[in-house]
Amino acid sequence: MHSAPGGLFIPRRVSRPGKPIVTRDDIRAAHGRIRTHVRRTPVIALEPGAFGLDARLVLKLESLQHTGSFKPRGAFNRILSNPVPPTGVIAASGGNHGIAVAYAAKALGHRAEVFVPEIASAAKVQRIREHGASVVVTPGTYAESLEASGQRAGETGALVVHAYDQPEVLAGQGTVAMELEEQAPDLDTLLVAVGGGGLLGGIASWYERRVRIVGVETEGCPALYSALKAGRPVDVDVGGIAADSLGARRIGSLAWELLRAHAITSQLVSDEDVVAAQRALWREVRVVAEPGGAVALAAILSGAYRPHADETVGVLVCGGNADPLSVM
Amino acid sequence: MHSAPGGLFIPRRVSRPGKPIVTRDDIRAAHGRIRTHVRRTPVIALEPGAFGLDARLVLKLESLQHTGSFKPRGAFNRILSNPVPPTGVIAASGGNHGIAVAYAAKALGHRAEVFVPEIASAAKVQRIREHGASVVVTPGTYAESLEASGQRAGETGALVVHAYDQPEVLAGQGTVAMELEEQAPDLDTLLVAVGGGGLLGGIASWYERRVRIVGVETEGCPALYSALKAGRPVDVDVGGIAADSLGARRIGSLAWELLRAHAITSQLVSDEDVVAAQRALWREVRVVAEPGGAVALAAILSGAYRPHADETVGVLVCGGNADPLSVM
Repeated sequence: MHSAPGGLFIPRRVSRPGKPIVTRDDIRAAHGRIRTHVRRTPVIALEPGAFGLDARLVLKLESLQHTGSFKPRGAFNRILSNPVPPTGVIAASGGNHGIAVAYAAKALGHRAEVFVPEIASAAKVQRIREHGASVVVTPGTYAESLEASGQRAGETGALVVHAYDQPEVLAGQGTVAMELEEQAPDLDTLLVAVGGGGLLGGIASWYERRVRIVGVETEGCPALYSALKAGRPVDVDVGGIAADSLGARRIGSLAWELLRAHAITSQLVSDEDVVAAQRALWREVRVVAEPGGAVALAAILSGAYRPHADETVGVLVCGGNADPLSVM
Repeated sequence: MHSAPGGLFIPRRVSRPGKPIVTRDDIRAAHGRIRTHVRRTPVIALEPGAFGLDARLVLKLESLQHTGSFKPRGAFNRILSNPVPPTGVIAASGGNHGIAVAYAAKALGHRAEVFVPEIASAAKVQRIREHGASVVVTPGTYAESLEASGQRAGETGALVVHAYDQPEVLAGQGTVAMELEEQAPDLDTLLVAVGGGGLLGGIASWYERRVRIVGVETEGCPALYSALKAGRPVDVDVGGIAADSLGARRIGSLAWELLRAHAITSQLVSDEDVVAAQRALWREVRVVAEPGGAVALAAILSGAYRPHADETVGVLVCGGNADPLSVM
């Protein structure tokens, strides 16, 4: 590993020509590994005309997953794919990934150390602690926590569980798509929120090009959009309503390769679009989504993504860790 | 009737000559009638150990139905089974039934008049109005609204859509069970909240005795419990946290016949049990349930219903029209 500008640790390119980073078989194997530890989250097909749209919408309610987000899929797969030393596992995240790693480590009987940035919400840090993890608060943002956790891992030998930039994490997140294809085999398109790209990369690896996959980001968290524009991963300033869950400073290097290979595009939505989508989900479907969890729906409600009238569009609701008051 | 250990009242088997009130064919026909108007709501199978229980729980998330409760099923079936005069449809309810009738009438292009008691929540009355219904506020409680709506129906000839005591309403609610049996064919037991008994009666009519059906009521809304104790429907005082949705003064006459025929029992839970169940649903599954929607889960979490370790228990989450703040 080397330190990239901005303090992010980027693994060296691990793929070789001809060997994809994550294959469908990797995702099937991940599913076999984690299936007793994660929930098969439900889908709901909305009626024609829902939200005033002609297109048929199918919501995958991954917000009902353990710990309120998709993150345990990748965390369990990473941990179950590797020997875990007595010092346990280590991660950096003040949000959903940190909660998921703490949860998975506890479920599997391992110690966990989670480095969280000082700006993390007290509620989420509390949930990390509730799952028994040691919490180390670091100055600055996620990037600094990641760097500090990397140094600590070098000392303790703990198994590093990255939030998005490890093949086992990508394969674990890809199990969402494997389930969804069984539950809703007729999707034309799938809208997926993008932070570091672990979820989107895993999903693209499952579907390959059989379904049109569209990444969605907020204007305040444009890691993929900016990388596509620049032709390579670049650092971005992150902020706005979804920064807590989508605020990667740079698209993950593995995800970047995958997303380029699968010609994935990015749609931007505004924070106001996200709030409107959160409220619409609550009003019409009684589903609570956190901002990052409503970003995909925001793309279609705002018109950033415009489906054909006869299109069947999957929308991944990837996180539900909202303050319920915020969705009303 | 005799009193069983633990205070359960078990009615004698009633053998009635002639046709049952609601048959499985009636429910299949209802499903054919309403299927394009209602959502097939999802189920989620929780992992072993969820909520600290050995039993396997399967949640049917009917709270994600249109208007946030199961009520549109019966309302659509009643309206679609009968000629509707130009004066439209009429109902009494300041709660979920009123919202559902207003929604169904609008969807089908009919006028709707809804009589609501003065004690109804402003938020729910607002939702009735938002669906285009005329609202008539009456002094007193639901019973007075029902009486006034009946008088008005006599004048206008509008089609009466009762909240629970009509065969088409029971058959419509029974479609929940038809769906659930397809989605979760292995249930041993199903826990269902009881108000006037329309939902429970419809469900019992679908399952007959292939699944153990248990009604659950709050101590403040004991219409079925009191009827079972008295051996006949009796008036009860209603109050407490779930009165808004389960507060029928007396079990429906059709439901009563059905529930006796199917030997359905009732479990009581406290308001505190209900609040604990609401909070547990939010904390562990990110599902928002209103008090009446969490009553069934409260029975199992409180220990009022104790499953065997190898039992598969269905829990119907029948309504989600909560103030999200109340579930935290």
